[in-house]
Amino acid sequence: MIERTEAEHAEKMKKKQAAHDRIVANKMIEKGLLIVHTGKGKGKTTAALGMVVRAIGHGKKVGVVQFVKGAMTTGEKAVFDAFPDHVEFKPMGEGFTWDTQDRARDIAVARTAWDEVKRMVADPAYDMVLADELNIVLRYDYLPLDEVLAVLTARPEMKHVIVTGRNAPEALVEAADLVTEMVLVKHPFRSGVKAQAGIEF
Amino acid sequence: MIERTEAEHAEKMKKKQAAHDRIVANKMIEKGLLIVHTGKGKGKTTAALGMVVRAIGHGKKVGVVQFVKGAMTTGEKAVFDAFPDHVEFKPMGEGFTWDTQDRARDIAVARTAWDEVKRMVADPAYDMVLADELNIVLRYDYLPLDEVLAVLTARPEMKHVIVTGRNAPEALVEAADLVTEMVLVKHPFRSGVKAQAGIEF
Repeated sequence: MIERTEAEHAEKMKKKQAAHDRIVANKMIEKGLLIVHTGKGKGKTTAALGMVVRAIGHGKKVGVVQFVKGAMTTGEKAVFDAFPDHVEFKPMGEGFTWDTQDRARDIAVARTAWDEVKRMVADPAYDMVLADELNIVLRYDYLPLDEVLAVLTARPEMKHVIVTGRNAPEALVEAADLVTEMVLVKHPFRSGVKAQAGIEF
Repeated sequence: MIERTEAEHAEKMKKKQAAHDRIVANKMIEKGLLIVHTGKGKGKTTAALGMVVRAIGHGKKVGVVQFVKGAMTTGEKAVFDAFPDHVEFKPMGEGFTWDTQDRARDIAVARTAWDEVKRMVADPAYDMVLADELNIVLRYDYLPLDEVLAVLTARPEMKHVIVTGRNAPEALVEAADLVTEMVLVKHPFRSGVKAQAGIEF
């Protein structure tokens, strides 16, 4: 709760509006953004899929590559299935073993998923590409960071790319236009609540 | 980039998996969650709408009340319009003046929006209610925090409620089951990029 007089409140809101108007007036560039959602909190993939919904609503075409199994939920799939011409899903992460015994196989799975991202980034048919949980794959060195950065930064001018996953590499944050960190403040799993339809999946 | 041996990597992944399995096995409760998305970063409303998409996909019915104008974008509206039986939108915040000259009017607008939330929370037809930007209204004392908390904490057992907006009151965070703070790490407006279709709206 904040304490202030009515006059102070009015003054503050007017200044805010003026500052906002100045900022909007100066924005002239339209370009494809490199967007990163990272942090340990929830909402990284959910917010990215929210942007996918927004793009679909504008008639755009979006490619979604999931590097990790289960990132895409059955709930979202049912909605996106209603827009088959606008969303292409590639759930590629099913094969990960996360085990050194099969590190070569994990790297091969990551490579196949990355090839899909590269194809969608290069293909003008896609307005937006979501590389879901790519950060995790980078974290385990399943893909060379240099190669990933080279492809993402050299993307076509109007292409939006969203990368999600905790532990985004510093160089990716540097290269990105928009970076949000989702911070876990409180989680119901800690209080014994199980994953529920419509919330976690 | 992390440095570790193959054996250390394998050991770590196995421990993680075991810890995860234990947590999932202990989750027995299914209940409606009070969810808060706060912080100055982007993605608060977007992630909430992503949860709405997820719920719709499970055939659930969701009520969305927008306390602030423009929180709902044309992009999302086009998608949700395809599911008229599952989403009910109430864009209530059009009338805010954010000005002390009309503080009484702002309070009346907030009250009308809040009445919609209360109705949806009480009505068993709604599985999930999104009170979008309610935190902002609370921040300006347009609604009594005590009344809001009383309604939200006394909600029906299986009702999910999502509250978004920066500056979530501490008491709301206390009462919530799941709280995520969206932190702004980097924003393209700072580099002269304007709001674009499919990203901001």
